[in-house]
Amino acid sequence: MGSLDANPAAAYAAFAAAADVDGFHPLNPDDVRSYLHKAVDFVYDYYKSVESLPVLPGVEPGYLHRLLQSAPPSSSAPFDIAMKELKDAVVPGMTHWASPNFFAFFPSTNSAAAIAGELIASAMNTVGFTWQASPAATELEVLALDWLAQLLKLPASFMTRTVAGGRGTGGGVILGTTSEAMLVTLVAARDAALRRSGSAGVAGLTRLTVYAADQTHSTFFKACRLAGFDPANIRSIPTGADTDYALDPAVLLAAMRADADAGLIPTYVCATVGTTSSNAVDPVGAVADVASTFSAWVHVDAAYAGSACICPEFRHHLDGVDRVDSISMSPHKWLMTCLDCTCLYVRDTHRLTGSLETNPEYLKNHASDSGEVTDLKDMQVGVGRRFRGLKLWMVMRTYGATKLQEHIRSDVAMAKMFEEFVRGDDRFEVVVPRNFALVCFRIKPRKFASEEEAERVNRELMERLNKTGKAYVAHTVIGGRFVLRFAVGSSLQEERHVRSAWELIKKTAAEIVGDGEDDRLMMMMRE
Amino acid sequence: MGSLDANPAAAYAAFAAAADVDGFHPLNPDDVRSYLHKAVDFVYDYYKSVESLPVLPGVEPGYLHRLLQSAPPSSSAPFDIAMKELKDAVVPGMTHWASPNFFAFFPSTNSAAAIAGELIASAMNTVGFTWQASPAATELEVLALDWLAQLLKLPASFMTRTVAGGRGTGGGVILGTTSEAMLVTLVAARDAALRRSGSAGVAGLTRLTVYAADQTHSTFFKACRLAGFDPANIRSIPTGADTDYALDPAVLLAAMRADADAGLIPTYVCATVGTTSSNAVDPVGAVADVASTFSAWVHVDAAYAGSACICPEFRHHLDGVDRVDSISMSPHKWLMTCLDCTCLYVRDTHRLTGSLETNPEYLKNHASDSGEVTDLKDMQVGVGRRFRGLKLWMVMRTYGATKLQEHIRSDVAMAKMFEEFVRGDDRFEVVVPRNFALVCFRIKPRKFASEEEAERVNRELMERLNKTGKAYVAHTVIGGRFVLRFAVGSSLQEERHVRSAWELIKKTAAEIVGDGEDDRLMMMMRE
Repeated sequence: MGSLDANPAAAYAAFAAAADVDGFHPLNPDDVRSYLHKAVDFVYDYYKSVESLPVLPGVEPGYLHRLLQSAPPSSSAPFDIAMKELKDAVVPGMTHWASPNFFAFFPSTNSAAAIAGELIASAMNTVGFTWQASPAATELEVLALDWLAQLLKLPASFMTRTVAGGRGTGGGVILGTTSEAMLVTLVAARDAALRRSGSAGVAGLTRLTVYAADQTHSTFFKACRLAGFDPANIRSIPTGADTDYALDPAVLLAAMRADADAGLIPTYVCATVGTTSSNAVDPVGAVADVASTFSAWVHVDAAYAGSACICPEFRHHLDGVDRVDSISMSPHKWLMTCLDCTCLYVRDTHRLTGSLETNPEYLKNHASDSGEVTDLKDMQVGVGRRFRGLKLWMVMRTYGATKLQEHIRSDVAMAKMFEEFVRGDDRFEVVVPRNFALVCFRIKPRKFASEEEAERVNRELMERLNKTGKAYVAHTVIGGRFVLRFAVGSSLQEERHVRSAWELIKKTAAEIVGDGEDDRLMMMMRE
Repeated sequence: MGSLDANPAAAYAAFAAAADVDGFHPLNPDDVRSYLHKAVDFVYDYYKSVESLPVLPGVEPGYLHRLLQSAPPSSSAPFDIAMKELKDAVVPGMTHWASPNFFAFFPSTNSAAAIAGELIASAMNTVGFTWQASPAATELEVLALDWLAQLLKLPASFMTRTVAGGRGTGGGVILGTTSEAMLVTLVAARDAALRRSGSAGVAGLTRLTVYAADQTHSTFFKACRLAGFDPANIRSIPTGADTDYALDPAVLLAAMRADADAGLIPTYVCATVGTTSSNAVDPVGAVADVASTFSAWVHVDAAYAGSACICPEFRHHLDGVDRVDSISMSPHKWLMTCLDCTCLYVRDTHRLTGSLETNPEYLKNHASDSGEVTDLKDMQVGVGRRFRGLKLWMVMRTYGATKLQEHIRSDVAMAKMFEEFVRGDDRFEVVVPRNFALVCFRIKPRKFASEEEAERVNRELMERLNKTGKAYVAHTVIGGRFVLRFAVGSSLQEERHVRSAWELIKKTAAEIVGDGEDDRLMMMMRE
């Protein structure tokens, strides 16, 4: 960070002399370029060194407040000061999602094209709430969504521009999170069900029911509550090992039937392609068929695994998507597009805009009045919105389908390699089949050991691993079993990182349960 | 954009030779640096030239789809290709919010420090849903919010860290939009009211009522519908010229009293400091006093004008904020922080997290269990979140209170200058008092002219102005009058731009209504 390390006083002095000559110009192009060059240098150094930083920092709550001043500075300072504090105080307390040794949660994949696109978007800083407020921002977002829909082989009914070149009723929007995608479609489905049932206002809300497998992300159940659904009417459908924790359409049907028979109105079903916990895949087509009996809205949450479906060998996981009402997937998870970027597609945009449209005087304009354009504010919670399409378009424009597929396949191959390591060591077991680049595994419990014992051993393994700073793995509980999640795909990751992590896991496990069967038995017996 | 313009074939050839040597590395530090340097050059050139670009582009709906290929590329391309298409096809269709000739809506202010901060955040690409998922990201966000609270002189009850250094119940979170701030507080207020009223589930929802002045942003009424409030129970309180279109506490009291008397439950009041239409300021303290009679939640939307309240001379607009439940303001509007950045403060975070908390197994960790840390996912709609605090912290760290205040004051001074221009020309009138940096004005209607005539003339003025590409002004309707909104503050704006815009307005008005009274009367009579 330049001269500051050597001589902060000098940096301040030079700065003070230069300041205030001609007022305050926060976007002076020379300052912008100078600050950005410093930021680029930081990013370069960060990517070069992140591998050697502890993935999970060993800081205590409140650490940063002890390092940085608690009151805002009253006067200005050279940008180097902020950069120095970033480096000295902030970076040591970061969990490094960009580290190639990050295997927790799902990776937040990224790329040079995405970061560059986001930089330009934040510099242009347009607010594309209506088409007129930034025609190119709206049209590039729509184009990027249509491109992605083509990569995913989504039916033309989800695209703004149909294959024939005309305008269908479908369309998409880029949102910040899957939760928002769920929320806005829940609201559209809710309003449609209320209308269908002849409800006066929201009086009929207590009769509406919603459904998802118990493996569905917790944010779905939260989104239902946000939209005002009655907590008693939010059905979490049990799953089990028999379906590898995917939603069983027969169980769904029984639940919906029972509700309908009781005078309730099945309104919405969420199916997940690649659950957060274990990457289970709900059968999209079968779920859609069940839901159609009740005219319920079907949403597919493919936040993580949707990206894989750009490869022909994974596309079958979306079979039946032509019969659902909406689907969302997040390129910020696995399509090398930095946060945040969740793509929502709906088959009938009017059902969405019918619930979300606003038309204040100060946003009225000829283009909106003409009905020829998409005003993206009417497909999201808020009004304001960044230039969201640019980075996603740049990723597809620069890397093309081939490289994007190569990237998915490379991650899956590394996960497969890890899975084989696990399977090849009889102290470990893979707990559920691997579908994508997530391996759920654990130290195998000894015979007749309780689940509590198995959990204690595996929790110990996880905590020891994470304390090394050389790997970060997260956990889940599947079917009552405490399981480690090994998610491959951080964008700087190479095969050697997966190999090193496995060596570390073996070594750490050996410290806990010994090198082989006998040692392990002895350890267990001593406990 | 480099060699591409001269010889795209050569760029492709060099690129093809370099590719595929060693797999695909989307975050290769050298590529990242190279792409970012190109992006920085673009940004520099853009800021240098944006003044000369038409603010509002003259493109037709669908223009971009005609310029860019409709199918995603199958193979990769040099980054220069994306940059060239950005420059040739996208930029000409942008509405340039960064232009110093942009006077529409509210400015999306920006700064070198903010853009650099956002760049670093998107490169680090952490997902700080829990404290553990990125301790520094969470703590820096909390610190930035506490700093801003101090600049705004918010009561300590809104800060995470109270003045005494202990931990209060208050706290904040950075969200994407004001709408989300409204939504999450509406949901918290809704759930509290349901509990208070002994409602079984959401059965009592039909009795809950919400209130805001008719000048409140339309997104408030949308957020109410998203949260499931009955459309019939969403009260838009009429305002008039007598209060300069601010909420009249007596009218609010009468409306709440009437609802309570009818057995309804007043649940939430939204007060605005600086309405979108005309910058009216609802009296925060008086509104809080009325609402407290009914135990209703009071939220202050200070999206735009909140930033001005860092200056002592504007702080009185927040008087009474110590008695409200929540306040949100958006540094992405007027505090030089690029999109998106909306700061929400609540007095009792537990009321918010009580409605928004989720606790899935895969996110459980010791820090969260200890209750010592803030998990920001529980104060927003979604789970995932960018490293949101960095850019806001960098803005305050680099510019300090003094420069931030200077920036507000400079904008207000320019708006005041414009206001004086308008007042000094008897063909024009200022329609409502100017509170901040927005001037609402129009061509004065001639005596006995209908509002339709006045609207026609002023609409003509707006459309002619915007077609020149040399200024972009938006409109609104206040008290039945069609009015032009002249919002000063785009970050590249200087006094000369305001002067030029006024010259253009005078010249264009003269084309429509003549240079003086006689000409104007004649023009009007001919119509």
